[in-house]
Amino acid sequence: MENFNEYFRYKDGKLYCEEVPLEKIAEKVGTPFYVYSKTAIEDKINQYKEAFKDYPTLICYAVKANSNLSILKIIEKNDIGVDIVSGGELFKAREAGIPPNKIVYAGVGKTDFELSYAVREEILAFNVESFQELEVIDKIAKDRKKKARISIRVNPDVNPKTHPYISTGLRASKFGIDINEALDAYRYASKLENLEIVGVHCHIGSQIMDISPYKEAVEKVAELVFDLKKEGIELQYFDIGGGLGIKYKPEDKPPHPKELADIVIPIVKQTGLKLIIEPGRSLIGEAGALVSQVIFTKNKKDKHFIIVDSGMNDLLRPAMYNAYHHILPVNKKDKKVVADIVGPICETGDFFALDREIDDLQRGDYLAVMSAGAYGSSMSSNYNVRPRAAEVLVEKDKFNIIREREDYNYLIIPEEKGEI
Amino acid sequence: MENFNEYFRYKDGKLYCEEVPLEKIAEKVGTPFYVYSKTAIEDKINQYKEAFKDYPTLICYAVKANSNLSILKIIEKNDIGVDIVSGGELFKAREAGIPPNKIVYAGVGKTDFELSYAVREEILAFNVESFQELEVIDKIAKDRKKKARISIRVNPDVNPKTHPYISTGLRASKFGIDINEALDAYRYASKLENLEIVGVHCHIGSQIMDISPYKEAVEKVAELVFDLKKEGIELQYFDIGGGLGIKYKPEDKPPHPKELADIVIPIVKQTGLKLIIEPGRSLIGEAGALVSQVIFTKNKKDKHFIIVDSGMNDLLRPAMYNAYHHILPVNKKDKKVVADIVGPICETGDFFALDREIDDLQRGDYLAVMSAGAYGSSMSSNYNVRPRAAEVLVEKDKFNIIREREDYNYLIIPEEKGEI
Ligand SMILES: Cc1ncc(COP(=O)(O)O)c(C=O)c1O
Ligand SMILES: Cc1ncc(COP(=O)(O)O)c(C=O)c1O
Repeated sequence: MENFNEYFRYKDGKLYCEEVPLEKIAEKVGTPFYVYSKTAIEDKINQYKEAFKDYPTLICYAVKANSNLSILKIIEKNDIGVDIVSGGELFKAREAGIPPNKIVYAGVGKTDFELSYAVREEILAFNVESFQELEVIDKIAKDRKKKARISIRVNPDVNPKTHPYISTGLRASKFGIDINEALDAYRYASKLENLEIVGVHCHIGSQIMDISPYKEAVEKVAELVFDLKKEGIELQYFDIGGGLGIKYKPEDKPPHPKELADIVIPIVKQTGLKLIIEPGRSLIGEAGALVSQVIFTKNKKDKHFIIVDSGMNDLLRPAMYNAYHHILPVNKKDKKVVADIVGPICETGDFFALDREIDDLQRGDYLAVMSAGAYGSSMSSNYNVRPRAAEVLVEKDKFNIIREREDYNYLIIPEEKGEI
Repeated sequence: MENFNEYFRYKDGKLYCEEVPLEKIAEKVGTPFYVYSKTAIEDKINQYKEAFKDYPTLICYAVKANSNLSILKIIEKNDIGVDIVSGGELFKAREAGIPPNKIVYAGVGKTDFELSYAVREEILAFNVESFQELEVIDKIAKDRKKKARISIRVNPDVNPKTHPYISTGLRASKFGIDINEALDAYRYASKLENLEIVGVHCHIGSQIMDISPYKEAVEKVAELVFDLKKEGIELQYFDIGGGLGIKYKPEDKPPHPKELADIVIPIVKQTGLKLIIEPGRSLIGEAGALVSQVIFTKNKKDKHFIIVDSGMNDLLRPAMYNAYHHILPVNKKDKKVVADIVGPICETGDFFALDREIDDLQRGDYLAVMSAGAYGSSMSSNYNVRPRAAEVLVEKDKFNIIREREDYNYLIIPEEKGEI
C-alpha cells in the first residue's frame, strides 16, 4: 500500500500523521477524532505564497472549510487573511487574532446583525451579492458613522465542471450579480455615500480539477474592470474566490497553486489590481483525516459490512454528495476484503464507502478516512444525539487536542432552560 | 390559502400555531426558530393509543426524530416509551424521566461504552443487529452481573417504496439480520447465559405512505415467531418499528395509525406477543415548523430569489433528500410569485424550495417551513459557524423556549481548550 500523501505515511505497517502513530492518538483520545497535520497546512500555505509571490496577492483562507480556532491561529501566524460567510466566522477569526484588514465577507444572506458587526470591525471588504444588500450595508454604515468597503460578487456564468451543489458560478444560481448587470450595480453603489467601492469578486465553484474555467471567468471579470475604469470607477482588488480541487482518490491529480497563478496572474496584471484568492478545501482538505474504530463486522449473504464508530453526523460528504473518500487501515493487514464501510446511524445513507476493497479489518481495529480536513468537522452535527468528535493537531512528534470531544452534558445546555 | 393542518391555521391572514401568532414568537425570540404544537403531539400520541387500545401495545417514540428534552418530557407525561439509537439518546431519555422498562435500543454500531451504559440502566430490550453484537452484549452483561434483555432485529427484505436512504429493510442494507439467518441467531443467543431473549424487531423504512409493505413484513416475521416456538424459544414482544409517513405536500394523504393497527394486529395476535411500535416522524413531524425571516429578495434574469435567515444547517432535508417542504407566509400577501427560496449558506444545495409559487414575500417578512418537526432540529449543524436555531413549544395561547438559540461563546467552548 502506498502512502496517501507526505503527511500520512506508513512505517512498519502503521499509519502515521507526521511522526505520530495514529494508533497512539486513538489510545489517548478515543475515537472518532479528526487529525490534522500542521506541517501539511503550512506547506500548502507556503505553496500558495510561493506561487503568487511575484504579484501582490492576499490569500484569504475560506473559514467554512474548517473553522477550528487552532486552525485559524495557524492562519494568523502565517500572516494570511480569511474569507468568511457569517458573523460566527467573523467572531472566530477575530478570536484567533486575524486582523480586520485581512477579512473579506461573502454570502447571499448576511443579516443586519452580521452586517453591523462586520461594519463595526472595519473588515477589508464585503463581497456583496445583491442590489438590496448594497442598500442595506449603506444604511448600516451610515448608522455606525463608518464607510463600508465593498466589492461586488459577479456571476461570470462559467461551468466549473464539478458537483452541481458546489457549482456556484452558473447564472441560475443564487450567488452574486449577473455579470451583465454588474455595471449597473457598480453605478448604483457609487451613488451610495457610505460605501467605498474597493473591488470585484467571483467564485466559480469548488473541487475544481481542470483550471480552464478560471481563465474564462477571470477574463470575463477583467472585461468588467475595464468597463468600470471607463466610467471612472476604479478598483483595488480582484478577488477570484477559491475552488482548487484536492486528491480524494489515489489517482487524482489536482492542479497545483502554481498552475492557478500562471493562468490568472497574466490576466489580472492587465487590470493593475491586487489579487485576492480564497482557498478553502485545497488548503486544509488533504491535511486532515477522520480516525474511527471498527465496532463490529458482519457478513450478510451478498455483503460484508465494517461498522465503525463515526457516522454521517461526523462526516456528511459521502451521504450528501456521494463523495469518495479514500480509507486506510491504521495498522496494515495481510488479507483484503470487499466491504461496505458504514456508520452507526439509522439511515442507509450513513456510509463511508460501498463495495470498497480494503484490509480485512476486525472489531477494535482503527481506520482513517482520508482528505477529511475540509468540509468535515465544519459540517458535523449531533444527529442521533452523538457528541461531535475530538480534533487533534499534529506537529512533528507532538499532538494536541484542539477540540475536546463533546459530552452529553454540553449537548443539553441550551435545552436545560426549557420551562415545560 | 387553506390551513396546512389543525394546529397551524390562518386567522385574519396571520399564521398561528394553536392560539399564538407566529409573528409574535418571531418578535420575541428572533429568527430562525423551530416551533412545535404541544396539542398536535399529544393528539397524535392519543391517535396511536386509541388505534392500538384493544391490543397490548407499547408505543416507543423514536427519539432520533426529535430529541429535545421538553419533547421527551411530553413523551414521559403521556406514559409512552422510547426507541433510542445511542448513549446520548439514552441520557436524554433518562434526563426526561422515561423509565428504563419503556426503552428499546436499536442501531448497528453500539459501542461498548453505550452497551455498558444501557445494560446498567436495565432497559427493556436491545434490538440486536448482528451475531457479534450478541456476543459483546453477553460479555458486558456478565461483567456487570446482569441479564441483558434482547430482541433480534430481522431484516424481512421488503421494499417500503420510499427514498432509498431511508429504506432500511432491504437485504443489502446494513441493518438487522437476514430473516433466513434469524433462526441461527436466536439459537446462538439462547446459548449465551447473560442474555434473556424477549422479542423480535423489524423496521422497514420511513415516510411510508402505502402500508401494504407492513403486512408483508409482519407476516414474514410472524412465520419466524412460529418457527422459534417450535424450537422452544418463546418471545414476549413483537416490535414492528416505525415508519408511517406524514403530510409534506398539501395533497399528501398519509395513512392513519388506525390503518396500521388494522393491518398488523390480526397478524401479531396469532403469535400471542405484545406489540411494540416505534413511530418517530409521524408523531412529531407535522407538529413542527421552522420559521425564518426574509433577509433579501433578488431578481436575476430567469429567477426570483427569496433569501431567508435559515439554511441547510438548520434543516438538511431538502439538500440531503431533495425533500419537499410546504412553505407558508406568516402574513398573507395579495400577490404571488414563483421563486427559489434559499438560505444564506455558500452551497447551491442550500435551498428550501425551487421554482415554488408563493406569496410575494419581501425583506423582513416571515415564513414557515412546514412539517419540520421530525429530522429537522435533530439533524441540524453549525455549518458556516451558524448558531443553531431556538426551539419553541406552544400550548394554546402560551409559548416557551425549549431550546435557547446557541451563541458564539457556546460554540467555541470545546475549542477554547486547544493548546496551540
Ligand atoms: C465565496 C467563496 N470563496 C471561497 C470558497 C472556498 O472554496 P474551496 O473550499 O473550494 O476553495 C467558497 C466555497 O464555497 C466560497 O463560496
Ligand atoms: C429502528 C427504527 N425505529 C424507528 C424509526 C423511526 O422511523 P419513523 O421516524 O419513520 O417513524 C427508525 C428510523 O430510522 C428506526 O431506524
